[in-house]
Amino acid sequence: MFSGAQVSLYPMSDDFVGIILEAIKALDPYRPTFRIETDDISTLLVGPPDQLFPAMRDLFVSASRHGPHCVLAATVSRGCPGEPDDPICTPIADVNFDKPLPERIAAALGAVEAAPRMGQSVAAQFSLYPLGSGHHMDEIYGCIEFLKHSGVFDKSKNFCTKLRGDAGPVFATLSEAFLRFGAPQGHVALDLKVSANSPTAV
Amino acid sequence: MFSGAQVSLYPMSDDFVGIILEAIKALDPYRPTFRIETDDISTLLVGPPDQLFPAMRDLFVSASRHGPHCVLAATVSRGCPGEPDDPICTPIADVNFDKPLPERIAAALGAVEAAPRMGQSVAAQFSLYPLGSGHHMDEIYGCIEFLKHSGVFDKSKNFCTKLRGDAGPVFATLSEAFLRFGAPQGHVALDLKVSANSPTAV
Repeated sequence: MFSGAQVSLYPMSDDFVGIILEAIKALDPYRPTFRIETDDISTLLVGPPDQLFPAMRDLFVSASRHGPHCVLAATVSRGCPGEPDDPICTPIADVNFDKPLPERIAAALGAVEAAPRMGQSVAAQFSLYPLGSGHHMDEIYGCIEFLKHSGVFDKSKNFCTKLRGDAGPVFATLSEAFLRFGAPQGHVALDLKVSANSPTAV
Repeated sequence: MFSGAQVSLYPMSDDFVGIILEAIKALDPYRPTFRIETDDISTLLVGPPDQLFPAMRDLFVSASRHGPHCVLAATVSRGCPGEPDDPICTPIADVNFDKPLPERIAAALGAVEAAPRMGQSVAAQFSLYPLGSGHHMDEIYGCIEFLKHSGVFDKSKNFCTKLRGDAGPVFATLSEAFLRFGAPQGHVALDLKVSANSPTAV
């Protein structure tokens, strides 16, 4: 399996370069477990699927801590058949996701409840794409069932779901949605935006 | 069929509110054909699938014209089985996309060649997701074949493809990728970032 993300950080500030350079130091603890490459559009993280959202959470909280309106956008993927297997993508937690939907929903809710609080409010919007399966809408509806009970569900929108709350449980909810829905070895993609300090937040 | 996009504009500037408010005037000509709704994360455009990328192009060129580093991020979708059909989503151009891959590739290349030039250089990065089909990788590889001959292909990256060039042919290429690949009535999603005036552009 191959798993990773293309991650971009958008500080709505004249000092966006400084904010980005400072924030990416939050990725330092993850460097031993990830391959990280940057160009002018995004930063590639390749590594354990269960560490992707904690890494993005720490990056985003670091960028938004000092008050600017910031957005993190990411394209997250696991199991893409066009990518070679890579040992770096072995999950750190030894977990079995090959279970019926109701059990996966219960386990996901438990993980969100155990998530640490970060002290940063965020709004997130994402779409989950289980690819190559004949039952992709079943997995999407199962995931939505989990989201509605996650404690950070805000609302369903066209093409996506919106979450709101502390960055800790919000990123934990996103991680569970990504890991536990869609076939365990299947191709799953997730399209994500997370926003903090928006002047128009409701 | 239901088609539309959740679109966000990120000007990396202290004056991001002013830049956004000025730029969205570029959507005025599209208002009669689209349903448009905005919240703190994104603006929803629902309307004809073949008008989505021209609308996003005009919005983005308007925002980036005065020099700030700007990014447009969008989640674009057609044929989602969870959404009701909507007459507003009827394509304006009367086109038939139910053809073999080589013919679709040739037609897409013709459309890109005919695209107007906008005088704004951009870099774009996107992922195409044909959902619910057993052959999603065939359609993705067919689309990549088109992209490589589009004249704005930059490179393949993990999880996505990068384009670079004038905003006109770049957005035309994105539109063709979205309209002509994946089953004509199938569920297709596209995850997009477009960047202009980046200080780190190569």
